[in-house]
Amino acid sequence: MASQNNSGQSGAVSDLVDHLSRLPGIGRKSAERLAFHLLRVHESEAIALADAIRRVRQDVRYCEHCFNLCETTACQICSDPNRDATRLCVVEQPRDLMSLEQSGVYKGLYHVLLGRIAPLDGIGPDQLTIDALVDRVRTGNFVEVIMATNPTVEGDGTSLYVSNLLGEFPVQVTRLARGITAGSILEYANREVIADALTGRQKL
Amino acid sequence: MASQNNSGQSGAVSDLVDHLSRLPGIGRKSAERLAFHLLRVHESEAIALADAIRRVRQDVRYCEHCFNLCETTACQICSDPNRDATRLCVVEQPRDLMSLEQSGVYKGLYHVLLGRIAPLDGIGPDQLTIDALVDRVRTGNFVEVIMATNPTVEGDGTSLYVSNLLGEFPVQVTRLARGITAGSILEYANREVIADALTGRQKL
Repeated sequence: MASQNNSGQSGAVSDLVDHLSRLPGIGRKSAERLAFHLLRVHESEAIALADAIRRVRQDVRYCEHCFNLCETTACQICSDPNRDATRLCVVEQPRDLMSLEQSGVYKGLYHVLLGRIAPLDGIGPDQLTIDALVDRVRTGNFVEVIMATNPTVEGDGTSLYVSNLLGEFPVQVTRLARGITAGSILEYANREVIADALTGRQKL
Repeated sequence: MASQNNSGQSGAVSDLVDHLSRLPGIGRKSAERLAFHLLRVHESEAIALADAIRRVRQDVRYCEHCFNLCETTACQICSDPNRDATRLCVVEQPRDLMSLEQSGVYKGLYHVLLGRIAPLDGIGPDQLTIDALVDRVRTGNFVEVIMATNPTVEGDGTSLYVSNLLGEFPVQVTRLARGITAGSILEYANREVIADALTGRQKL
């Protein structure tokens, strides 16, 4: 690959630009800026990034209980004896779990569906970890299952589907509160948000 | 590194997020999105990106004539016998050369300064490839040197410094035209742009 393309760029550089511009939210110009940044920084920094990408693909797998990302058979949360094993929070993706953990409010366990039911994208219940979730609820000692799917049509649909399946077990199924967001301005909240906030109003 | 941090993230994932968020223009949230994208795509695609980063650092060097990036001793432009060897275009960075090449108008050679004189950043003429440029002009058959540094205070200063040095040689030193940009709207052009456009007005 000692070739150059017709923009006077070396083959290796244009190859890197190609790969970077395939990342979500990175256009051609940003990819070029990133490539030149990686050429300018200390070599160890660029190689460290390359190694981090390699390692994440080689070492990271799904937790065999909750399908969170981890590097062992069970993730840190599932192996932590201090977590409340009577509560289970169901999320779509590992990154949703991360957001919930960062709030520091929830101390129970999780279950990652690895997606949501989306018929238009050809994703049915079978492609998610719903069977494993039902098994966990059947064999576990859960008193509450909190549905924390995204507040979208597909997320709500998935929630409804799962909660119907869990109807046969003696657990309470709840969902995240809907309402106005902290720090927002009422004037700019849309109709659905205001409706949720009024319907779910709480005692002061 | 089988450890996890307190946001329930695997060590390898948070490591990758750390490295990605060091890239220019990539914040923490974007880095997380990119990391999860790299976990979701086909393994070969992620590994190809890692390899492209490695390769660009291992194989790419500066052309010994013009300091463009290349993978051999001389870049494609310097080794091309069809380029006009009487014209030399001076740019700050390899990416500027790329932009000029993409326009397809210029057929001469280049010289990359690898920066601009920036006293506030502690960058003096000695840290650039100005000596090599003067040598090239002394020994070459150039009739014109086109200064194509950025139209900024530092770029203009660098241009002026270089053109003074080249004063002793029988070459014409020119600079890129300044004026209104194609496709722009006069109403939104600032004072300096309008002044440049008036001063450099051309026969219709």
